[in-house]
Amino acid sequence: MPSPSSEETERGFVVPIGGAEDKIADQTILKRFVSLSGGSDGHILIIPTASSLEDTGDRYVSVFTELGVGSTDVLRITDREHAQDSDRVARLNTATGIFMTGGNQLRLSTILGGTPLATAIRRLNAKGVHIAGTSAGAAFMSEHMIAFGAEGSTPHAGQVTLAPGLGLTNSVIIDQHFQQRDRLGRLLAALAFNPFMVGIGLDEDTAAFIGPEELIRVVGNGGITVVDVSELSYSSMATVRENDPVELIGIRLHVLAHGARYNLNDRQAEPGGNR
Amino acid sequence: MPSPSSEETERGFVVPIGGAEDKIADQTILKRFVSLSGGSDGHILIIPTASSLEDTGDRYVSVFTELGVGSTDVLRITDREHAQDSDRVARLNTATGIFMTGGNQLRLSTILGGTPLATAIRRLNAKGVHIAGTSAGAAFMSEHMIAFGAEGSTPHAGQVTLAPGLGLTNSVIIDQHFQQRDRLGRLLAALAFNPFMVGIGLDEDTAAFIGPEELIRVVGNGGITVVDVSELSYSSMATVRENDPVELIGIRLHVLAHGARYNLNDRQAEPGGNR
Repeated sequence: MPSPSSEETERGFVVPIGGAEDKIADQTILKRFVSLSGGSDGHILIIPTASSLEDTGDRYVSVFTELGVGSTDVLRITDREHAQDSDRVARLNTATGIFMTGGNQLRLSTILGGTPLATAIRRLNAKGVHIAGTSAGAAFMSEHMIAFGAEGSTPHAGQVTLAPGLGLTNSVIIDQHFQQRDRLGRLLAALAFNPFMVGIGLDEDTAAFIGPEELIRVVGNGGITVVDVSELSYSSMATVRENDPVELIGIRLHVLAHGARYNLNDRQAEPGGNR
Repeated sequence: MPSPSSEETERGFVVPIGGAEDKIADQTILKRFVSLSGGSDGHILIIPTASSLEDTGDRYVSVFTELGVGSTDVLRITDREHAQDSDRVARLNTATGIFMTGGNQLRLSTILGGTPLATAIRRLNAKGVHIAGTSAGAAFMSEHMIAFGAEGSTPHAGQVTLAPGLGLTNSVIIDQHFQQRDRLGRLLAALAFNPFMVGIGLDEDTAAFIGPEELIRVVGNGGITVVDVSELSYSSMATVRENDPVELIGIRLHVLAHGARYNLNDRQAEPGGNR
């Protein structure tokens, strides 16, 4: 769960990205993250743990450097011993932004879960450091994460597997590659277990910049599907049989695009007007 | 997640019970809960939502009355509308203890999740009200709960389904009917996703009285299996295939009985010496 933030320092942004963010042309999302993290005075540390490819971290070093960040580096964490090593954990202390790459979110949770590195990321976020994650990196950010699941737009029993995530926020549960992989059903199934969170379905090349005041700003070229179950009057998840559709009555849904805002406190949406 | 506790008031106990607690002979656990909740000055409110039987709440009214509690009553919450009804929620305000019965934990999470009733229970616990739950009521208490799973002592991929729980604590994940239903494997599988919690396997007629200082006192006739994964060096959950065993290296396990204590902060156990 999120570390408590003191009254003097403002919590940093939490920025889940739907994957496949543009790295070459208009780079809207990554540009905004660099600027948020201090621009030419910033230091962005990249954690490529989710990926099993060798060069994932270095690709982001090139992109962030090109976008004019002050400095950027890769923190290689490929096993639990690394995540408990105090020298590696100390390298986080100079970061103004932390970026978690895509890959497999279960690599992140199994390698970072319960380690001093995970605790340090939560504490730094509470002190004002901004944390972004793309694809698997996005899924991992919340207290409850979607580990994996099946495609399709109708929720089914047994469709989704949840696991504990990093815990930067407990207001939302995040899904990514949302439109591209037909994931409404699994997001609804995840919410059907215990309807207290807001579901955030992120299309590719689209990000939710979640500010300390619990306000989401939509940035990017795709849509964000917001699923609000605060008025849900019925969920059949307790009784439904494996592979049968889960009944849900009273879902509110919003589809938001670049420039739109969504307030997680009062659950009100403000359109971007396709600016 | 737990409501923040102010500095003046001490948080109430969280008391998961492994199910089938003795209601007729020595009644050790229920007696202790009555005494903790103020004895003849106490008021215990029973929430039988997990159960689909009509008389579950009334049975506990008889038992608590016989044990000398000041007063006791049943709060009937069988759908989401009840859990949003301000008159029902207000009835919690006079309780010194709240007791959640057994049944199906997904009934609890689907009916109470995200409602004012769930928020009220967390706030009251932060203000000193003691909360107990047996069987399904125990599973539901933590932030991450085991919704269901398969038997067996070796953890397997796909063996366990997690769901968000009530969030009275995020230090532990609870399993119940532990020895009786051969559940070590599913508890280990749950921990393998993200090894930050302590696993608590409760035998029947056995309870963990978890105090505000994060100290567990073991009460009852069975054992509590404590699974500490803080020194885990490897979890294969990210790569294992469905139905294959999950590899876990570096688990610490304790089996504790009546009178024993376990400190969730420093993860040290103190035996009860079979008192």
